[in-house]
Amino acid sequence: MLYLVGLGLSDVKDITVRGLEVVKGAKRVYLEAYTSILMAADVSSLEEFYGREVIVADRELVESGSDQILEGAGKDDIVMLVVGDPFGATTHTDLMLRARELEIKTDVVHNASVMNAVGACGVQLYNFGQTVSLVFFTENWRPDSFYDKIMENRRLGLHTLLLLDIKVKEQSLENMARGRLIYEPPRYMDIRTAAEQLLEIEEKREEKCYTPETPCIAISRLGSPTQKFAAATLAEMAEYDSGEPLHSLVILGNRIHELESDYFMQWAINESTLKSALVEDGKLHK
Amino acid sequence: MLYLVGLGLSDVKDITVRGLEVVKGAKRVYLEAYTSILMAADVSSLEEFYGREVIVADRELVESGSDQILEGAGKDDIVMLVVGDPFGATTHTDLMLRARELEIKTDVVHNASVMNAVGACGVQLYNFGQTVSLVFFTENWRPDSFYDKIMENRRLGLHTLLLLDIKVKEQSLENMARGRLIYEPPRYMDIRTAAEQLLEIEEKREEKCYTPETPCIAISRLGSPTQKFAAATLAEMAEYDSGEPLHSLVILGNRIHELESDYFMQWAINESTLKSALVEDGKLHK
Repeated sequence: MLYLVGLGLSDVKDITVRGLEVVKGAKRVYLEAYTSILMAADVSSLEEFYGREVIVADRELVESGSDQILEGAGKDDIVMLVVGDPFGATTHTDLMLRARELEIKTDVVHNASVMNAVGACGVQLYNFGQTVSLVFFTENWRPDSFYDKIMENRRLGLHTLLLLDIKVKEQSLENMARGRLIYEPPRYMDIRTAAEQLLEIEEKREEKCYTPETPCIAISRLGSPTQKFAAATLAEMAEYDSGEPLHSLVILGNRIHELESDYFMQWAINESTLKSALVEDGKLHK
Repeated sequence: MLYLVGLGLSDVKDITVRGLEVVKGAKRVYLEAYTSILMAADVSSLEEFYGREVIVADRELVESGSDQILEGAGKDDIVMLVVGDPFGATTHTDLMLRARELEIKTDVVHNASVMNAVGACGVQLYNFGQTVSLVFFTENWRPDSFYDKIMENRRLGLHTLLLLDIKVKEQSLENMARGRLIYEPPRYMDIRTAAEQLLEIEEKREEKCYTPETPCIAISRLGSPTQKFAAATLAEMAEYDSGEPLHSLVILGNRIHELESDYFMQWAINESTLKSALVEDGKLHK
């Protein structure tokens, strides 16, 4: 059997009781460690908590070595640990499909992910439109397709959850070209960078998808003991020090229920600025 | 401290390790038992698993008795158990706001909910638009506001997750009028009823938001050992026996990635019908 087991958001103890039982009883346990990170745990703390070895599965292994991962899964239990919920990334759908081809049974232990835990910031999950990913801009690659998706949500008055890029075990172009397995230090997009990139594309496109006055909620270290929210305009977010990773950003839509604003107003960086921004921004996509 | 603890989807063991610790150490533990149900567990099995008393909190208590729930939470730990993730329903936002007013500290233990676990059906979470609730029609009350929301999603090519009504501890109008605390048996909307209601409103509105040929995925008992998916047209769904509750329904949008259809095709009730339906439906919102 192949088990995909979600680890939740932050701590070793965020695994479910059933997930922990599956991990303890498995023949081999892999940890997918490149699409996200568990904020308050590393591999050795997982190994200590489980009382067993955990094999780190990098991109090469998960994307090209699925048969190696699945070896023996016809008779033994193999576990792939995934930060958040197992279906947050397409990668694991691939692995499930490959298991089915090999007639290996599969099971999933679900857990929280940013996709549902984002509700903690005070806006309702059913008022969100499509989720959008924001990648790090480079000197020559500044893709702006996210802008159209945010526009689609904003025109409907819906909130947008932006998942911010993480770069783990990435090679520089030079090292990649020379075939050197030297990896760059991990990078996690912070709120400031996200806001700057968003404003840059608005300046370029000028379609008034959002403005520097558009109200947002910054979500930092969701589900961890140092979790922090901030509600502010996009311009304020471009100056905001969000601290340690991980971060996500919500761009609010104008279909805001009073219960939502009552709740997120407690995180306001500047309450009067935010209140007038909510009024002004509300006129943008009438 | 007030803790909101998510229970996940199905089994007593779907609680997280941290959630279980919080429950065991708390002074009082409530279970919110009217916006959803834990499929494979009842109060006595929770009590047995936790080794402690669990107080069932019905609608009256949660919505009007928050001060009773919060009594003593300034010094003791009080837990509210919530099926899925604590922020699935607005109810718990209210309770958090009330705790803040009383200067009671709060913490949340997140868990899986249908809002993220729906990814298990094979379509990607970031291809979903807004989530829509579908309530039981009555003879005189057949609200169709869901239709406009599905239309908004469909015009963008996005999938729609439909949360199907559950009625737990509801009074009949007659019993309510007479003040009799007699409750109707619980009812959970099945896939067939959902599909019939959807088709009825399309017939009435005739705006071609969807048709009997629109492809959908039925999700039954998500996250439980008897979990089942079915991929079929809406007309087929109106004939589909989905078995025991709970159920959700996904109406597919036409932005379907090949990896998605590769995956959900395994649940097809009739593969050739579904394939041609995907082609035909794809033309509807071009």
